[in-house]
Amino acid sequence: MALLFTSTPDRQPVWQALFDAEGIPMIAGEDAVTDPKAVTAIACWVPPADLSRYPNLRAVISVGAGVDHLPPLPEGVVLSRTLAPGIEAMVRDWVVMATLMLHRDMPRYLEQGRTGSWQSHPVALASSRRVGILGMGRIGTLAAVGLQRLGFDVAGLSRSGRQGVVPMFAASGMKGFLARSDLLICLLPLTPETRGILSAETLSALPRGACLVHAGRGAHLDTDALREALDTGRISAAMLDVTNPEPLPADHWMWQDPRVIVTPHVAAQTDATEGAHHALAVMRSLRDGTPVPGLVDQARGY
Amino acid sequence: MALLFTSTPDRQPVWQALFDAEGIPMIAGEDAVTDPKAVTAIACWVPPADLSRYPNLRAVISVGAGVDHLPPLPEGVVLSRTLAPGIEAMVRDWVVMATLMLHRDMPRYLEQGRTGSWQSHPVALASSRRVGILGMGRIGTLAAVGLQRLGFDVAGLSRSGRQGVVPMFAASGMKGFLARSDLLICLLPLTPETRGILSAETLSALPRGACLVHAGRGAHLDTDALREALDTGRISAAMLDVTNPEPLPADHWMWQDPRVIVTPHVAAQTDATEGAHHALAVMRSLRDGTPVPGLVDQARGY
Repeated sequence: MALLFTSTPDRQPVWQALFDAEGIPMIAGEDAVTDPKAVTAIACWVPPADLSRYPNLRAVISVGAGVDHLPPLPEGVVLSRTLAPGIEAMVRDWVVMATLMLHRDMPRYLEQGRTGSWQSHPVALASSRRVGILGMGRIGTLAAVGLQRLGFDVAGLSRSGRQGVVPMFAASGMKGFLARSDLLICLLPLTPETRGILSAETLSALPRGACLVHAGRGAHLDTDALREALDTGRISAAMLDVTNPEPLPADHWMWQDPRVIVTPHVAAQTDATEGAHHALAVMRSLRDGTPVPGLVDQARGY
Repeated sequence: MALLFTSTPDRQPVWQALFDAEGIPMIAGEDAVTDPKAVTAIACWVPPADLSRYPNLRAVISVGAGVDHLPPLPEGVVLSRTLAPGIEAMVRDWVVMATLMLHRDMPRYLEQGRTGSWQSHPVALASSRRVGILGMGRIGTLAAVGLQRLGFDVAGLSRSGRQGVVPMFAASGMKGFLARSDLLICLLPLTPETRGILSAETLSALPRGACLVHAGRGAHLDTDALREALDTGRISAAMLDVTNPEPLPADHWMWQDPRVIVTPHVAAQTDATEGAHHALAVMRSLRDGTPVPGLVDQARGY
């Protein structure tokens, strides 16, 4: 039993030390593999192209929170996404920041700042702003609690609509959910059902002048539809951490539009120690026959 | 007994309706005063120049949270500052936003955005960031709780150093407080003792690369010292809602410096209804001989 590590080299020493301490073999990089039959798990962003080289492979561990970039895995190989409190808190913080920035008119004040214009606009209380969170998994729930504590009027939407920390809509209630979202936050996983979900139709169902916070995946959003919604005033401003494609080309209109603020996919980064701890927990579960942490339903896609 | 209202005209109808409902006379503007002896209180941003016109004046009500802009009042006239949960929540929200923006490198990402540069930088956990709040009154305490809930390592400093919701330093421990403030937040009232407190000496006592969030008063900050601290790298970025003077001139260096983000004194605005309720509470206290809400210690200055 050994882990093949193919994540970024800067994380490797941290992982190696923790694996050594636990007495579980870790191989850094495919070139270092002398006995492919020893590899029982691979920790990676994208797995090696030819997994048939590893006949005893039982698990692939995505070092990020998302798994939409991964190809289908061979029969019998489970997929685990890294569960890390750090990732979740980081995304929550970015979402709270972005929501406050749109709520408090930062795109407008930043634009005014470019010409040195000292012009104030009415300030609204957070409690007067209805926030809607698309995707109420672990991160969505954290964000909902954080925003609710600041006084925002938060609701969520999930496939099942099961009740949670805030009022919940099921997927069938999407229209009503959008109609009450002055500020829409997307934290969905990318699946065949959610691809393109931030469409012209979706944006046009929001209240006039609504704002968009997007920390899901770039392919959720139709940027042409966003541009049109900005131009008609349906959407007043947007803050995006994910784009399609990534990196966003330097000449893309969103960089220059003062109504849109883009950050380069930095809502979260996996901490090396947290990532290694997760991988060790997966290795232990494979060894002991206990449930694999972070197990992804590969048919559902998250 | 009557209130003389000299605040902004847009608030006047809201106040008038609430005073009418309570049966307490309100006079809108000095020109409407027919019997100066009837005026027992004045609600204003800046009071009329000649207060000797009102021999029965007992209270001046500042319609904002600060009172540093007010001249000394005649003997026997009390000063009340508007206590409004809305103001406090608004400032808290602005401070949480500004702190997250500096914590998450927004000045750098906004600058990169101008040239369409997709370049990520390491993301730190909030728990790794030591925040220091100068001024732990009602708003400082709210901000401390909000930031602590996001995981920041928060401490406060107040004159007395009395214990509160976070670890507290007394004024005598300023040096130690500054040395542990990766992110310094100023929420002090402006008094003779606090004027110029954000000086070269203060900034140079912060850890290298610290950030500054300033929602106190413009005259707390020596902007030349800020510029030098930015140039030497002592301070890496700052976010200011108050400047000296206000409005900040359009050609001021801070508008153009990507390391500084300025908003035009919009951390809070008094809601007309909240302001009127506070003024009514003051009128009742004068009538009934009960403690005046929001009473300012005029010798201390807050």
